[in-house]
Amino acid sequence: LRIRLALIGQGLVASHFEAGIARLKEGDMEPYGVPLAKFQLPYRPEDIDIVSSYDVDNAKVGKSAYDVAMQLMGNEFPVPSSLKDIEIRRGIHLGSSRGMPFSAGGLEDSEGVRGAISRLADEWRSLDVDVVVNIITTESGRAFDSADGLRGTIEAGGPGLTASHAYAYALAEYASRRGGAAFVNSIPTPLANDKGVVDLYAEGSAVVLGDDGATGATPLTADLLEHMAERNRKIGFIVQFNIGGNTDFLALTDPGRNAMKELTKSGAVSDILGYDAPHYIKPTGYLEPLGDRKFVAMHLSYLSFNNALDDVYVLARINDSPALAGILVDLVRLAKIAVDRGMRGTIYPVNAFYMKRPGPSDSRATSKILAFEGLKKWLGLTG
Amino acid sequence: LRIRLALIGQGLVASHFEAGIARLKEGDMEPYGVPLAKFQLPYRPEDIDIVSSYDVDNAKVGKSAYDVAMQLMGNEFPVPSSLKDIEIRRGIHLGSSRGMPFSAGGLEDSEGVRGAISRLADEWRSLDVDVVVNIITTESGRAFDSADGLRGTIEAGGPGLTASHAYAYALAEYASRRGGAAFVNSIPTPLANDKGVVDLYAEGSAVVLGDDGATGATPLTADLLEHMAERNRKIGFIVQFNIGGNTDFLALTDPGRNAMKELTKSGAVSDILGYDAPHYIKPTGYLEPLGDRKFVAMHLSYLSFNNALDDVYVLARINDSPALAGILVDLVRLAKIAVDRGMRGTIYPVNAFYMKRPGPSDSRATSKILAFEGLKKWLGLTG
Amino acid sequence: LRIRLALIGQGLVASHFEAGIARLKEGDMEPYGVPLAKFQLPYRPEDIDIVSSYDVDNAKVGKSAYDVAMQLMGNEFPVPSSLKDIEIRRGIHLGSSRGMPFSAGGLEDSEGVRGAISRLADEWRSLDVDVVVNIITTESGRAFDSADGLRGTIEAGGPGLTASHAYAYALAEYASRRGGAAFVNSIPTPLANDKGVVDLYAEGSAVVLGDDGATGATPLTADLLEHMAERNRKIGFIVQFNIGGNTDFLALTDPGRNAMKELTKSGAVSDILGYDAPHYIKPTGYLEPLGDRKFVAMHLSYLSFNNALDDVYVLARINDSPALAGILVDLVRLAKIAVDRGMRGTIYPVNAFYMKRPGPSDSRATSKILAFEGLKKWLGLTG
Amino acid sequence: LRIRLALIGQGLVASHFEAGIARLKEGDMEPYGVPLAKFQLPYRPEDIDIVSSYDVDNAKVGKSAYDVAMQLMGNEFPVPSSLKDIEIRRGIHLGSSRGMPFSAGGLEDSEGVRGAISRLADEWRSLDVDVVVNIITTESGRAFDSADGLRGTIEAGGPGLTASHAYAYALAEYASRRGGAAFVNSIPTPLANDKGVVDLYAEGSAVVLGDDGATGATPLTADLLEHMAERNRKIGFIVQFNIGGNTDFLALTDPGRNAMKELTKSGAVSDILGYDAPHYIKPTGYLEPLGDRKFVAMHLSYLSFNNALDDVYVLARINDSPALAGILVDLVRLAKIAVDRGMRGTIYPVNAFYMKRPGPSDSRATSKILAFEGLKKWLGLTG
Repeated sequence: LRIRLALIGQGLVASHFEAGIARLKEGDMEPYGVPLAKFQLPYRPEDIDIVSSYDVDNAKVGKSAYDVAMQLMGNEFPVPSSLKDIEIRRGIHLGSSRGMPFSAGGLEDSEGVRGAISRLADEWRSLDVDVVVNIITTESGRAFDSADGLRGTIEAGGPGLTASHAYAYALAEYASRRGGAAFVNSIPTPLANDKGVVDLYAEGSAVVLGDDGATGATPLTADLLEHMAERNRKIGFIVQFNIGGNTDFLALTDPGRNAMKELTKSGAVSDILGYDAPHYIKPTGYLEPLGDRKFVAMHLSYLSFNNALDDVYVLARINDSPALAGILVDLVRLAKIAVDRGMRGTIYPVNAFYMKRPGPSDSRATSKILAFEGLKKWLGLTG
Repeated sequence: LRIRLALIGQGLVASHFEAGIARLKEGDMEPYGVPLAKFQLPYRPEDIDIVSSYDVDNAKVGKSAYDVAMQLMGNEFPVPSSLKDIEIRRGIHLGSSRGMPFSAGGLEDSEGVRGAISRLADEWRSLDVDVVVNIITTESGRAFDSADGLRGTIEAGGPGLTASHAYAYALAEYASRRGGAAFVNSIPTPLANDKGVVDLYAEGSAVVLGDDGATGATPLTADLLEHMAERNRKIGFIVQFNIGGNTDFLALTDPGRNAMKELTKSGAVSDILGYDAPHYIKPTGYLEPLGDRKFVAMHLSYLSFNNALDDVYVLARINDSPALAGILVDLVRLAKIAVDRGMRGTIYPVNAFYMKRPGPSDSRATSKILAFEGLKKWLGLTG
Repeated sequence: LRIRLALIGQGLVASHFEAGIARLKEGDMEPYGVPLAKFQLPYRPEDIDIVSSYDVDNAKVGKSAYDVAMQLMGNEFPVPSSLKDIEIRRGIHLGSSRGMPFSAGGLEDSEGVRGAISRLADEWRSLDVDVVVNIITTESGRAFDSADGLRGTIEAGGPGLTASHAYAYALAEYASRRGGAAFVNSIPTPLANDKGVVDLYAEGSAVVLGDDGATGATPLTADLLEHMAERNRKIGFIVQFNIGGNTDFLALTDPGRNAMKELTKSGAVSDILGYDAPHYIKPTGYLEPLGDRKFVAMHLSYLSFNNALDDVYVLARINDSPALAGILVDLVRLAKIAVDRGMRGTIYPVNAFYMKRPGPSDSRATSKILAFEGLKKWLGLTG
Repeated sequence: LRIRLALIGQGLVASHFEAGIARLKEGDMEPYGVPLAKFQLPYRPEDIDIVSSYDVDNAKVGKSAYDVAMQLMGNEFPVPSSLKDIEIRRGIHLGSSRGMPFSAGGLEDSEGVRGAISRLADEWRSLDVDVVVNIITTESGRAFDSADGLRGTIEAGGPGLTASHAYAYALAEYASRRGGAAFVNSIPTPLANDKGVVDLYAEGSAVVLGDDGATGATPLTADLLEHMAERNRKIGFIVQFNIGGNTDFLALTDPGRNAMKELTKSGAVSDILGYDAPHYIKPTGYLEPLGDRKFVAMHLSYLSFNNALDDVYVLARINDSPALAGILVDLVRLAKIAVDRGMRGTIYPVNAFYMKRPGPSDSRATSKILAFEGLKKWLGLTG
């Protein structure tokens, strides 16, 4: 029993994912950072086979995942030579890397959006792909109202279409033909939160998980807030700064992309607390020497019994990409399980734990510790 | 429907508790820091009537709770004049304040231990007490093997008896005669973790909740560790310092008392993680100008996916006594509910959320967020 | 021997300054936060008489300093009733409060810029003012090339003129007529760093001290960097976040004003280190409930011997306005001393310690601890 | 022009020192962490030749510095093969490693104290040693009243003699015979603070620098306090925790050794502030996985102008041993310069910057930034 996977976006997360899966296959390390690693699932991490990777950076397309990983993280992490077998193909651009310091081009440049989508669907068919994971750089974008609205924009080659939506659309087409496949969206673009996408997937035989993989300070904040809420403490304010030196932080210096991220970062506050505590929670800046190990500073202040004023501060240095790669190891397996079960649309019990902004769009955020209970229940696991 | 309460130990926690209950009755403040304040329970915080308070400090006995509270916290918190109605009576000493900078004496000095216990049982009968809360200064002590062992030590006036055990024994006697009463132990002395005490209470009609009220960094650490464990991160080490300037921190400069506290503080690590991560978790020091607002510094380091090394730091300035007073508002109500329900012995689902070292002694520690779910279930609450 | 002072900008800093001076006169508190309080200077803090205050907020003009201070800080700090004697007059606006949430107007609305300047110079003459302190909200502005350039812009009523420049010009005119007076600029607008202003003052009999009073994290960072530099540690990066809830932080959400502040905050890095370490140092955000007590988070990373990598983090909650008010108590006295000594232009040894961006414009930043030595030397003080 | 050096104590500091000097000779790295590296001194770091090393650990004596360094730090730092030329000889024990988890023995076991001292003096003569550096594990010990008292204790083989005193005595004898040599004491045992030792050295031709090399949080605290003092802020309290996993932290779990360290750590508070602010400053604990990279947490609280209350927190992860090794590179050179200049006794301007407790014993602590100015003056350096 194996899972055939395609990755979209050959950045640092993809490199960590590929290297990590390879090292797990080689028995070279423990599966730390993979939440369900100790539980018995139908698929083990080692059952994941990466059959393709896509990017739009002209310097990456045509190279192997090994070449790219060596350049991105070769000084700090081991890069197994088996990554040489992963070929990086050209994907859909649609301006998703606009303003980034590299030259890029998409399949749509030569074939149009419609053509590019068809070609991807065909490729995935020939590769017999089970799951596609979207880990491109954060882009600015918004939800479509309806499946028809999305369909219309695609067919008209219309403006406002994000690369993520185009990829998701390709997966839906492919899944209809094949009878089942899944799309995991680990960036903020609303897909599992887009009624249009979820309806489209529910009509077809596809599953979408999303949006924005929950790593770093956001899930920790959710659990901290739950901790406060359960003691009926009155939060006076929450401040959370984030600064890093990887490509995604560079991309977030663009206000449109930053707004996307702020949305998924601060969404849980009022859901968990039951009121909208004043907060400043956003990716704050880019500083290259920090690299992938971002710096997070958080401060929250609250009233305890007798209106006593308490202050809590949290600081962290967190490796951004490995954290996301680790939860993707679960998400890929859970996506495949959902396909095996014949599910369609999106799956809240999975999204609730793994995503910053769990779809569907009308769902409520919860703490992650409670979401983990829901996840285990969905899986039929105990303890 | 009301609850008649006796407090043992008229320190800062008692003062905050008394002032807070009075202010809630006056409608002067919100019940922040009372976990179940927003839930519908048979008793509201305002239904608690404090009918007596005990202490062994010669400078406090005979005074009113108002006088003591004014001195302890009058500069920083309002002290309602209704506290003048709470009289401070002399309790059992048994050396529990040894080494502290005040002169003290116990009922046993004149009447012997046996006599003191009988007198307390009689007093509680005449006051028709429902619940007794133990908030004396942390003392050094250990569990008895059996109800008979405890009984024998009491009757023999034997050495090794803590004040807390003597009080708990008095409550058991009183509850047997009356048909139901409860003892809440919010300090580290093992009572709910003492098989002797729990058996004694199960034989009688008494309920004991304990041990060591979960406030400050310990419950936060439990939830942090659960957060880490659910992501299968490998904790390299945990450091947690605590320093404060209140009487309890002064008492903890005594190695015997400190060891008691360290035990309840660090107990949860291996239960929650599933392995015993290296840790240094203890009350570290006393510095008078910090007052009741302790300083906590925590550092934990872990391996994430691909063995990436992350660091997290937590700092806090936390008002120690109000936090404990706030959860006592729930514990008193829950204790009374348990008595109303005819329960006996100790109650894990309550202890698990509210206590640092939840009894009975063979129970496993969990995160507090999960314990809160268990608590709500025990209460028949949802959401 | 007394000092007659006019304040420009009746915000929180002015209120703290006025209240503090009044309390010192009343013997009600110690002069904490006044650097030279323990040294013997020709003027004591109590020798300062505040003879007038200016603002452009229509809700403040015509009120007393007492009324404004009660509103701004009456809940948290005592406001002496002697502040009722300080009348708030209308000053020059020139759009300096643009975008702020209050209605404002300046003298120039009715009399033109030239007329407004003449009126102020006359007023100061009739009040016999010695020193004028500029503490208006941070504005966006740039230096003039020359005294003539500034003069020309004033006379032409030209665009690009800041309120601060107009006030400084008025002081220069007044000082020429009177034979000596001083202007203390505690905001980022370049005045002591404007060759035009300094030349104008040198030609007349005026002294200007500036720019941007050094409080909060910036002077601490200067000393931290000196500490690192003296150990020849190689700074990998410096991150410094600042967030607050006072009017100045609100004003800094405007990019133009923010850029002014970033300039004075990060200026010292390369001067002190000898190389330009990568840094992200800026006022980051506004969150109202933080009030005047801003939150600062700093992280710096460096290489030690054998290329060992060390990390340092600094967090702080700092009252912004009292800190500035405290150093103004010195600056006013030093400004008067400089006038007494017959000095003209700007005075680096004073600016170097008290200012974030010490004028003149070609001077080098140093650590504050070393600058303090220079200050004491200038004053003829030892030890 | 070269410096011939003997190291006492082949622990992690010695390994870093030896490896660092070797790498500097090889041109393999920059001299970060060496304070005077950018200044022109008569000796460069590369002019230091390590001619011998001493230890009492039976597992180290007879090995090469390379073998020991590989074991202590080989996984994390490069160890140049030239360390194979440094032979580890047996030194004086006198119980200095009592309680440590290794078997140890000293020269005095076979030859008596007097004999051991003579042998070392002879060895240093044959090796033509210029400078001896003491970096053994922190030991418990106290100052002698007089040179005669020390002499008497040595000759009588008396109790209470520390290994450090015995080594220092050997150096004095050797220096008398040779006409000049120097001893650098980088541990807390009072030598430069022992009038007995300083007098002995002044009588002979020897120089002693000490005590306790100033690395980590202590010098940073000194500069922080100077920063506060210069603003006349009133420090309410200072808390400073230190925890690490190296041998020295293990040794500091012994109360006697810990008291030595607390003394040198907290000595500067009242000297710099001018009053004794309440403080808790000590090495707090040992936790093996922290290794040589200790964790420091500091909190200080102060009153600013108008009695506004500010809070500052400092956290750090600092490599302990490289920091000390780096300043030893200067101290060895400065010691040799002092010998070249024909100086005797101890040298405050050097100690004041490099030592936690600068000798002589009646000297006042200052901030390190000011001490650096004094050091440069002593050296005739500017800027």
